[in-house]
Amino acid sequence: TFSRGIQTVTLIPGDGIGPEISTAVMKIFEAAKAPIQWEERNVTAIQGPGGKWMIPSEAKESMDKNKIGLKGPLKTPIAAGHPSMNLLLRKTFDLYANVRPCVSIEGYKTPYTDVDLVTIRENTEGEYSGIEHVIVDGVVQSIKLITEDASRRIAEYAFEYARNNQRASVTAVHKANIMRMSDGLFLRKCREVAENFKDVKFTEMYLDTVCLNMVQDPSQFDVLVMPNLYGDILSDLCAGLIGGLGVTPSGNIGANGVAIFESVHGTAPDIAGKDLANPTALLLSAVMMLRHMGLHSYAKKIETSCYDTIRDKKLLTKDLGGNSKCSEFTDDICRRVKDME
Amino acid sequence: TFSRGIQTVTLIPGDGIGPEISTAVMKIFEAAKAPIQWEERNVTAIQGPGGKWMIPSEAKESMDKNKIGLKGPLKTPIAAGHPSMNLLLRKTFDLYANVRPCVSIEGYKTPYTDVDLVTIRENTEGEYSGIEHVIVDGVVQSIKLITEDASRRIAEYAFEYARNNQRASVTAVHKANIMRMSDGLFLRKCREVAENFKDVKFTEMYLDTVCLNMVQDPSQFDVLVMPNLYGDILSDLCAGLIGGLGVTPSGNIGANGVAIFESVHGTAPDIAGKDLANPTALLLSAVMMLRHMGLHSYAKKIETSCYDTIRDKKLLTKDLGGNSKCSEFTDDICRRVKDME
Ligand SMILES: CC(C)[C@H](C(=O)O)[C@@H](O)C(=O)O
Ligand SMILES: CC(C)[C@H](C(=O)O)[C@@H](O)C(=O)O
Repeated sequence: TFSRGIQTVTLIPGDGIGPEISTAVMKIFEAAKAPIQWEERNVTAIQGPGGKWMIPSEAKESMDKNKIGLKGPLKTPIAAGHPSMNLLLRKTFDLYANVRPCVSIEGYKTPYTDVDLVTIRENTEGEYSGIEHVIVDGVVQSIKLITEDASRRIAEYAFEYARNNQRASVTAVHKANIMRMSDGLFLRKCREVAENFKDVKFTEMYLDTVCLNMVQDPSQFDVLVMPNLYGDILSDLCAGLIGGLGVTPSGNIGANGVAIFESVHGTAPDIAGKDLANPTALLLSAVMMLRHMGLHSYAKKIETSCYDTIRDKKLLTKDLGGNSKCSEFTDDICRRVKDME
Repeated sequence: TFSRGIQTVTLIPGDGIGPEISTAVMKIFEAAKAPIQWEERNVTAIQGPGGKWMIPSEAKESMDKNKIGLKGPLKTPIAAGHPSMNLLLRKTFDLYANVRPCVSIEGYKTPYTDVDLVTIRENTEGEYSGIEHVIVDGVVQSIKLITEDASRRIAEYAFEYARNNQRASVTAVHKANIMRMSDGLFLRKCREVAENFKDVKFTEMYLDTVCLNMVQDPSQFDVLVMPNLYGDILSDLCAGLIGGLGVTPSGNIGANGVAIFESVHGTAPDIAGKDLANPTALLLSAVMMLRHMGLHSYAKKIETSCYDTIRDKKLLTKDLGGNSKCSEFTDDICRRVKDME
């Protein structure tokens, strides 16, 4: 890799175990001499004019300037009308593609081996429109909004992702047999975009059929692209196949290089501050970030070291089946990273 | 069991492999001397006044009279505007509860053992409302409709099912963090109904979390109740855990005892007419039907024989890993049924 000088990334440590696992990632990046400088920001939502919930301006400005963020888990706010911070971040920065690679981890046993797929979820509309009404007492409607633009944009993202990552096929996941117009539009855009990517195989499959086939043989899937809610479901299902949210990275990608990478597990308040957390999901999200920034050799070095530590089984955190501390697990990865120099 | 005289059931053999597997079920019922008489009806949709698609009146009248039906797979119609026959049947007879027990089958290997759960799906509304609009060019909305009545009705069904089938818990599956009003209403009704069933444990879980936990450890689940689309997804996912739609029974239950039991696999046109089909899903659906009719000893006898034939592994159809014909598999079950006299 050519050195492009040091780049600044907005770091949102988050709540609960967020600060500990962020520290772990920073340590490992330092060991790897990754040319990254962190700008820490807090994103506890604030209310702006008219009571509208917003990202604090310091965090917003940092992201606007740096374009790239790494984020730990955030507490779900309890105030009525308070939006999910995760959703607010996706919306504020128009992070339209949610990307979750799911790869079986050697040495970490689940009922499946050979999982190697990527879910690409439309992140801005669909069932997450937030538009709901009471029609008459006891009758409620929620609106699923599908647009041509957002559908084309996510389809293009998926095919470009497949092409750039040497992946052979893209499967559009839908229920156009039921939601003929909305999922129909989504599917039509996928088909149109597929025409421009003749080097990538295109298939379509009903969501229920995907779920059934997924638990029977996940190795048949490659890149999957789908509307928002289906992505929410399938990405969690697939995370389950490889060991859960503690080991699954995630990236939210917007236009012009803007992106936030995040671990999607919870804040685990019960173990927070006890040096027991597993930093793998945040670390692998940071590895996705490095690749997004073109820093492939650093990504590879850190990823390999992390997988080696897991395969080695000697210094695992509790959730991974061991009884080491977060810092011991982290130090082992640091040692391996340094050994790779 | 007391004999209540012979009851008549409407049999809809269906398309593709439907007639063969229906014949298999009839043979096994005869061997078991089940007090059932079949009234065969075709349900290819016809167009009524104003072009409205309808169930042919002979089938409709038969169901209206008999109240109970058994149905093989139906071809998905290709005519534009033609509804899915499965959906039309659910609608015509107001079959509001879709019930799918998923139980691991001894001798049929999947990555999971100890699956023993039931998905109960609201079958009449939600994302299946069929209401969709183009707002402006390139912007489409689909309406998810949730009503208090349908939510209460399905919740009551689920809790009654749990109580009557000695099941310890009911989990409501939802995304009320996103669809606060619609899924919120569904969830509220579940909570209210739970108050009247203090003998059954009640829990709530996000759909994505259910999917994740399901593939990690399905044995933690018991009865699950949910809106229409979530049920479509989860029931297929769960079927995958125990071996797929070829071995998973299904029942669509309405008010006043009306019900249609069906295999939910496809018509398998490639093997139709070749005596290669696996009748298990339709047979186990027929077993559910017998229980629904109070004919428990016949149900037990047939179910045990079917499972014994599968566990024995000597006469399995191809999809089950053997190379026997449908008729050989069927005859083996018949023999066991007779031996149990
Ligand atoms: C936290 C929640 C709002 C979110 C979602 O539903 O999208 C989460 O499940 C996810 O997948 O990122
Ligand atoms: C055939 C199809 C319309 C149906 C559905 O989506 O409900 C099927 O998947 C099912 O689960 O019965």
